[in-house]
Amino acid sequence: SSPITVTMFPGDGIGPEIADSVKKVLSTAEVPIIWDEHFVGHTVDPRTQSFLTWESLESVRRNKVGLKGPMATPIGKGHRSLNLTLRKELNLYANVRPCYSLPGYKTRYDDVNLVTIRENTEGEYSGLEHQVVKGVVESLKIITRQASLRVAEYAFAYAKANNRQRVSAIHKANIMRKTDGLFLTCCREVAAKYPEIVYEEVIIDNCCMMLVKNPALFDVLVMPNLYGDIISDLCAGLVGGLGLTPSCNIGEHGIALAEAVHGSAPDIAGMNMANPTALLLSAVMMLKHLKLTDKADMIHAAIIKTIADGNYRTADLGGSSSTTDFTKAICGNLNF
Amino acid sequence: SSPITVTMFPGDGIGPEIADSVKKVLSTAEVPIIWDEHFVGHTVDPRTQSFLTWESLESVRRNKVGLKGPMATPIGKGHRSLNLTLRKELNLYANVRPCYSLPGYKTRYDDVNLVTIRENTEGEYSGLEHQVVKGVVESLKIITRQASLRVAEYAFAYAKANNRQRVSAIHKANIMRKTDGLFLTCCREVAAKYPEIVYEEVIIDNCCMMLVKNPALFDVLVMPNLYGDIISDLCAGLVGGLGLTPSCNIGEHGIALAEAVHGSAPDIAGMNMANPTALLLSAVMMLKHLKLTDKADMIHAAIIKTIADGNYRTADLGGSSSTTDFTKAICGNLNF
Ligand SMILES: CC(C)[C@H](C(=O)O)[C@@H](O)C(=O)O
Ligand SMILES: CC(C)[C@H](C(=O)O)[C@@H](O)C(=O)O
Repeated sequence: SSPITVTMFPGDGIGPEIADSVKKVLSTAEVPIIWDEHFVGHTVDPRTQSFLTWESLESVRRNKVGLKGPMATPIGKGHRSLNLTLRKELNLYANVRPCYSLPGYKTRYDDVNLVTIRENTEGEYSGLEHQVVKGVVESLKIITRQASLRVAEYAFAYAKANNRQRVSAIHKANIMRKTDGLFLTCCREVAAKYPEIVYEEVIIDNCCMMLVKNPALFDVLVMPNLYGDIISDLCAGLVGGLGLTPSCNIGEHGIALAEAVHGSAPDIAGMNMANPTALLLSAVMMLKHLKLTDKADMIHAAIIKTIADGNYRTADLGGSSSTTDFTKAICGNLNF
Repeated sequence: SSPITVTMFPGDGIGPEIADSVKKVLSTAEVPIIWDEHFVGHTVDPRTQSFLTWESLESVRRNKVGLKGPMATPIGKGHRSLNLTLRKELNLYANVRPCYSLPGYKTRYDDVNLVTIRENTEGEYSGLEHQVVKGVVESLKIITRQASLRVAEYAFAYAKANNRQRVSAIHKANIMRKTDGLFLTCCREVAAKYPEIVYEEVIIDNCCMMLVKNPALFDVLVMPNLYGDIISDLCAGLVGGLGLTPSCNIGEHGIALAEAVHGSAPDIAGMNMANPTALLLSAVMMLKHLKLTDKADMIHAAIIKTIADGNYRTADLGGSSSTTDFTKAICGNLNF
């Protein structure tokens, strides 16, 4: 099959090293991909109002698929956060994060297998804030029917396509009756079209308590922006942290931008110490999105096996392997 | 010493049974208390716009100290939530929840020892919501300098009085720069007056991840209303749930209302099966507030010992003891 062009944002800090790991594993696995690489700029591009270049956004729009490493927004005024700019400009409306216990990497939990689906464009992230009088400030949380339906549709379609049984809508509609209430109304409407999937509503405080007591109770969770921000990180914590969990953002017009959501770890950048797992697993999500299922499964199995074997582990997992040795071990575990 | 009058809201469902347990333990411990008991009414009191009677609120205002069981707000229009009415009418600005691993009651965590302090009057709980146009709704989050300073002052004073080393302010000021930003500004101002206490700021998503990975990193956490709602339940989950964790609400004019924050469990109401631990531990907080420290410590030790012994446990903890037998066991462990 003819190669697929994928936009790659290696990102900052450890980004280029973990991006190299992905390129190495995918090429060893003979995945037919051409990387269209874009770095964050050194000046503000007036067309994006951020350090992201217009060309890089055009590349994602054209290719409809991208992979992104960590990007640290430079401090200063007159430009927007890189991550928020990407979400806004590419209309990345759903952030999808599968979260599962990794065999061989022990945490306090061994039975996590869930997916958080976060509305990624509105809610508490509206950016609408102002001072009412001195000492009194307010922010607006915006919930729309359009964005709520869109993410709910995505969540149920995802559940169905991935043989998942249950969708839980997470909310605080007992307090925010109108905003979270609208979100629930939209989820219910979509749920009605999927009678084969169990639908439930869980209040966010109770959800967090249940997640730490018994995460196996959950399957697919769908929620407004801030709750998704909180719960997706909480869930990552259950299985070891953001270094081990993949993420993919779904946008309009079929765009998918897979992404490692951990930080750029400037302290270990360039030292060949970084753990590429989150970006590798994100690349696997991307391959599934591209329907390269066999390649995705093969690479996924190799990553899991390498971590489970435990002979090659990066420092963050208590080992002393270099990024490149860990990567080689994964390549060695690819089962053609 | 002359007896202290305390307002008691036994509440609904299992409320009266666990309130009986508290009365029994405190009287066995010879705590000089007279209970001024108030039940939730059967009709809306126009002066409170809720099923809470005006007299019951007057009782708390007069006594300045109360103990509250679970209250289920009856469904229907034209009245306010019981819990929210109490917070508003009594200006209960800080919700304090110590959360610690109980020796002998095993969870996935054995090293939790922290206190969450939640701003309890504003933020996302403003009740200000409206539809902008069809399909677009907004809620207002309100943060004021006055309420933020007040809860921050409380948190630092609490930390100092309880020999705690660190206060973490939890926020999302990278997104809600003005509202959460004001909250942080207030925390910093207060922190400057407590050089002996370490002050740090933790973003809520990262906080939740750290809490599930390593809760021992935290000591005192202070935060706006919704984050407090979420994190206090998450923390309760770490040590076994709301049935085991105490809570106390601090109001203006020295009011303290200790409260079990779990539900009223109507399914087991009247069956002598309920676990009174959360209300008992809340009563201990109340006794500390009243400076009845020796009684508080004695009762606390008896509760802890009874749970640790494990011979008397209610059904929720995997045992088969009745509420009254568990209560008797605690009384038997009181060490005069
Ligand atoms: C960096 C920050 C703006 C971002 C967010 O809050 O969405 C991050 O926490 C995330 O989850 O991607
Ligand atoms: C019942 C509900 C209104 C309440 C809240 O959200 O504050 C509860 O969750 C709590 O924490 O006391």
